[in-house]
Amino acid sequence: MNKPERIENETAELMHGIGQAAKAASHRLAIATPEEKNAALLAAAKALRAATPKILAANARDIEAAKAAGRPAAFVDRLLLDEKRINGIAVGLEDIAALPDPVGTVLAEWTRPNGLKFQRVRVPLGTIGIIYESRPNVTADAGALALKAGNAAILRGGSESHHSSVAIHACLVEGLREAGLPEAAIQLVPTTDREAVGAMLRGLNGSIDVIVPRGGKGLVQRVQEEARVPVFAHLEGICHTYVDQGADMKIAVPLVVNAKMRRTGICGATECLLVDKNARGDVLSPLVKALLDDGCEVRGDEATQKVDPRVKAAQPDDYGKEFLDAVIAVKTVDGVDGAIEHIARYGSQHTDAIITECEATAERFLNRVDSAIVLVNASTQFADGGEFGFGGEIGIATGKMHARGPVGVEQLTSFKYKVRGTGQTRPK
Amino acid sequence: MNKPERIENETAELMHGIGQAAKAASHRLAIATPEEKNAALLAAAKALRAATPKILAANARDIEAAKAAGRPAAFVDRLLLDEKRINGIAVGLEDIAALPDPVGTVLAEWTRPNGLKFQRVRVPLGTIGIIYESRPNVTADAGALALKAGNAAILRGGSESHHSSVAIHACLVEGLREAGLPEAAIQLVPTTDREAVGAMLRGLNGSIDVIVPRGGKGLVQRVQEEARVPVFAHLEGICHTYVDQGADMKIAVPLVVNAKMRRTGICGATECLLVDKNARGDVLSPLVKALLDDGCEVRGDEATQKVDPRVKAAQPDDYGKEFLDAVIAVKTVDGVDGAIEHIARYGSQHTDAIITECEATAERFLNRVDSAIVLVNASTQFADGGEFGFGGEIGIATGKMHARGPVGVEQLTSFKYKVRGTGQTRPK
Repeated sequence: MNKPERIENETAELMHGIGQAAKAASHRLAIATPEEKNAALLAAAKALRAATPKILAANARDIEAAKAAGRPAAFVDRLLLDEKRINGIAVGLEDIAALPDPVGTVLAEWTRPNGLKFQRVRVPLGTIGIIYESRPNVTADAGALALKAGNAAILRGGSESHHSSVAIHACLVEGLREAGLPEAAIQLVPTTDREAVGAMLRGLNGSIDVIVPRGGKGLVQRVQEEARVPVFAHLEGICHTYVDQGADMKIAVPLVVNAKMRRTGICGATECLLVDKNARGDVLSPLVKALLDDGCEVRGDEATQKVDPRVKAAQPDDYGKEFLDAVIAVKTVDGVDGAIEHIARYGSQHTDAIITECEATAERFLNRVDSAIVLVNASTQFADGGEFGFGGEIGIATGKMHARGPVGVEQLTSFKYKVRGTGQTRPK
Repeated sequence: MNKPERIENETAELMHGIGQAAKAASHRLAIATPEEKNAALLAAAKALRAATPKILAANARDIEAAKAAGRPAAFVDRLLLDEKRINGIAVGLEDIAALPDPVGTVLAEWTRPNGLKFQRVRVPLGTIGIIYESRPNVTADAGALALKAGNAAILRGGSESHHSSVAIHACLVEGLREAGLPEAAIQLVPTTDREAVGAMLRGLNGSIDVIVPRGGKGLVQRVQEEARVPVFAHLEGICHTYVDQGADMKIAVPLVVNAKMRRTGICGATECLLVDKNARGDVLSPLVKALLDDGCEVRGDEATQKVDPRVKAAQPDDYGKEFLDAVIAVKTVDGVDGAIEHIARYGSQHTDAIITECEATAERFLNRVDSAIVLVNASTQFADGGEFGFGGEIGIATGKMHARGPVGVEQLTSFKYKVRGTGQTRPK
């Protein structure tokens, strides 16, 4: 029992120190000027480019270990860095530097009859804990977004990408140092001990204000279940596209194919197609055939199965399933209300779309579907901070507290009230 | 063991049913029109006035029990209702009906280069759980604020005010019924079993989205420690007023007395006076003497003790203490930075004020004090949703997630993104 206990104590001590350092750094960051933060981001981008050979060497070690461990090709690809990807990470930092600084923005202002002037002003949240898996670029993206919003970041990367993350993190620290900001503004947990994650989920004695998990369902589930601090996350993206009787099929067919097939592994991919059974003319079969022809497996209800012999019979658990693959569930429903009901029952409050030419039906869908993102005549694959114009995102949240939808720099802030008076006292 | 187990199961079953009913009601409320919600509030106000004799009779039972239990006079007073107070509750409902409806407000809108039109729109949060102690008026205030924001409410009042709360709640239900809204929109937990609170803190199987505790420190502490759902609350209001060397004493003296003495038992009352030791001329003594002359006990550091023999020596734990009484801690500090440091160490991130004539010093204080509310030349007693113009508040939050400062109807909402396109697909 002696050894594991010692390791646990060591990790606990290490993590406590990281929390304290982050808290101290967050106080400095809260009053950092936009110029200081941007200087750090630009210097980090420069350092990343200069360190390309070092980062590639570190990445080669991770890749070798992943291959030796027999990891699947998709896993290895997520892990892999090359010159182009490293340059992409540097460009990402420069893009974040170019964003408007959210801190200090006046969200609202008003004057009361007694002359008191009120302002609601954006301030940083504090410290963001980011727990991620194999993509080493999250080290830079997440650290940079946190920094831009004036927050300290504590990064806990996956053990599989550890060497790559360490090399990228060193460049971020170089940027902070050059800009005269505390190096502890962006910390990378130096141990791959799993207990470090547990300590973060408990909030490091009040040092972590919010946790953002980036990775598969297993990770997100563990974080949501165990975290004692707020979490910005989505467990699943069970996105629906509903094609209404009033749809323009010239729009609907390419849109449904794009919503499902552009990338099948992302959270905004449509997993279930709902088709209005009241449509006059044939709406269902061109949609289903286009999907099949594009290489998508279609699992449908009885009406759908009649359309094409390639359609498989949907099992009950195919509705509400996140396939993350070239597979789609298809169901005919009774108009927009049938679609709304189906989504309420099977959806994950992430992203859902309607294709219709009827404005009233569109509004009904927009108002009644209780998802973070609801779209009319657009692909669910637009569920992405970049596509929203947020200039990057740290993740997508399906909760309703604080952040919802793509979490960009603005969502990584809180606010305070500034009240300016001329000696006002409150009457008895 | 047989009996307590059965009671526990009964309570668990009861609370589960309440949660399910609230969830169902919240779906209806989310699409309720402003007119429906306001009709319910106005009908409830009418019902309250009509039920005055019934409410007074119920209240008399609570008062009698409280007196029999030897409760202190202040407690009995908080519990007491009379015709004026009941009319005040009804007026409160009418005021909330008159507020702008937050649901559907467009918080931001923009168009992307690809023609997609984005809107960020306020939506209700879902279900608010309110746990409160002896003030029966919270039944109406909290239920009405939740309703106005389109949320269901689950109210758990203190056992001491149970009969009064039941009588008030019946009027709210009458209002809901008249407006054709589900009666479960505002539910009062019918048992005073403490396990009901535990069930609420665990979120009733995902049926409660946020908990708001209203009451003493013991209640808030229990809620903050045990809740597995987000909490809007403040544990303590350790508010500071700092008087800078540049202060206008004609403003400073009445303001400090008001900030401490207007009401000593509220969370926005100043608990600690900080005075700039670099002030030329005598700033400290007029402030201290005015407080003493107004009947306030002053506990000061050495410099303060020299001002007046009535000043007591401050003990170390007098700093950072919430007296909630006519007692104040006083300390001389080294300028605004000394004040900022003291507040960072001893404050509770609730409300802090500076009195100064120097704009740069005021801005430094406003930017660097990390509290929900920071004021210049105004009394900390303005920390109140009504004084902010929010038309009522369900409480004051010191956390940085979602709501901060006074929690009014707007803070009881979330948002969604509505995206309108014309067939846009996302490019590969």
